[in-house]
Amino acid sequence: MSRIAYVNGRYVTHGDAVVHVEDRGYQFADGVYEVVLVHHGGLVDEEPHLDRLDRSLRELRIDQPMRRAPLRQVMREMIRRNRLGDGMVYIQATRGVARRDHPFPANTRPALVMTARRLGLPALAQTEEGVAVLTIPDIRWARCDIKSVSLLPNVLGKQRAREAGAYEAWQVTTDDFVTEGTSTNAWIVTPAGELVTRHPGNEILSGITRATMIALAAEQGISFVERPFTVAEAKGAREAFVTSATSFLIPVTQIDDVVIGNGKAGSLSVRLLDAYLAHAGSSGPSS
Amino acid sequence: MSRIAYVNGRYVTHGDAVVHVEDRGYQFADGVYEVVLVHHGGLVDEEPHLDRLDRSLRELRIDQPMRRAPLRQVMREMIRRNRLGDGMVYIQATRGVARRDHPFPANTRPALVMTARRLGLPALAQTEEGVAVLTIPDIRWARCDIKSVSLLPNVLGKQRAREAGAYEAWQVTTDDFVTEGTSTNAWIVTPAGELVTRHPGNEILSGITRATMIALAAEQGISFVERPFTVAEAKGAREAFVTSATSFLIPVTQIDDVVIGNGKAGSLSVRLLDAYLAHAGSSGPSS
Repeated sequence: MSRIAYVNGRYVTHGDAVVHVEDRGYQFADGVYEVVLVHHGGLVDEEPHLDRLDRSLRELRIDQPMRRAPLRQVMREMIRRNRLGDGMVYIQATRGVARRDHPFPANTRPALVMTARRLGLPALAQTEEGVAVLTIPDIRWARCDIKSVSLLPNVLGKQRAREAGAYEAWQVTTDDFVTEGTSTNAWIVTPAGELVTRHPGNEILSGITRATMIALAAEQGISFVERPFTVAEAKGAREAFVTSATSFLIPVTQIDDVVIGNGKAGSLSVRLLDAYLAHAGSSGPSS
Repeated sequence: MSRIAYVNGRYVTHGDAVVHVEDRGYQFADGVYEVVLVHHGGLVDEEPHLDRLDRSLRELRIDQPMRRAPLRQVMREMIRRNRLGDGMVYIQATRGVARRDHPFPANTRPALVMTARRLGLPALAQTEEGVAVLTIPDIRWARCDIKSVSLLPNVLGKQRAREAGAYEAWQVTTDDFVTEGTSTNAWIVTPAGELVTRHPGNEILSGITRATMIALAAEQGISFVERPFTVAEAKGAREAFVTSATSFLIPVTQIDDVVIGNGKAGSLSVRLLDAYLAHAGSSGPSS
């Protein structure tokens, strides 16, 4: 069975999923996206993802390419046509096709593209052993709260991490505070057992999995605070981890050349991951 | 006659110029571009543009999609097939098509796209009356020296300018220095008659027209210095202007609510524009 994509009103085989070279997503990074996890055929945290998509579009003043109800339908149709059990749906919306010129074009219809693909659960080894992160300067623009496709610095950062043998790069401000990973949010557990992640603001993406994790921490009675933390504090943390829609929660057991905790996944991290898996598991095909 | 585009080895009608949705230019802004002016069928400053394209690719570690000689040939073929007298050739190169994942993909061929279009000389009215610029905070990333398609902040800035009735927005650092326009370099002439534009660095694109203009200023015996200048200095300048491959030199006669000089194109600006037109005119079809 071939993969099916959705491109501006049509379902096409993945290989035929094309956009015009003057789509502003291609020439100006003038678009936004979402990645929604599919678990047992159901969409995980669908509404928060669609709310954030709406917000990103509003911030860039791109018209909604499609209203919520039909959008939900297309996502379900993508799951059905791709016979997706566990995987993800990628949604991209751009300002549409127009003769190349920087200002917003008049009378241009926004573009909507979706792809889907299978995806297993994060590898058990990563969950038990944890991963390494590399700290790098945060060289991104000032509106990282918008989930735009303007991801070139994230690409360069992730590549640096991989070449250093790390799973992720944590981006750091000039005053030494961690903002977030290149495709994940960053968390630590202090020696006093307090869970910490940076407060929402223009410097980070307000992660959907991040928000779910905060709610789960509250349910678990875990002490939590939203605030900036430094690289030094992270290196002295009892536990650390990253979260994202597709990686769930992955323990961090090394930051640069410093081993975190005892070098294995921390107990609070494992507890939160278990809670998250139960949460994701409750998203049935009918959700 | 229909417009012709070049897409990854094929000449196609403009409407059929498409790329895959997983081209990294579309999903990650993982690509670079150049705009080369065509005057009387000849490419203006072709070699410097191709040198800069090479540099942008090197900085991002994207392989050259095509060597210099065939690239030059394709540009000429685009001029021929589009019967282009005065206009521009747009060249975009990206890291190519790969399953969506942040790090550099292995074994992916870079993509190469070209479009062409007619373009008249900048309007005489703009040249005589000058244009207004708006100053805005520079919210871009830290590598503006790379001519990447990661242009979302530039789009937002240009749109702000247009809505304020201005032609361009000058982007300003937190310590009040002008970096550059959203698609042009920024220049002033001090009350003492010295021509000033910001020095090259990570904060600005090293413009080809900018470099040509510097050479022409030297030929004209105009006193010139490369250094940062503040918004306040710009507002007190005798003359100001912007340069780019497609706008040449456009006098700036208003910055925010401040009229520059006597509100008309300054004499040094006009002299430089004349010199530039002579330079562009010397690029024949055989160049």
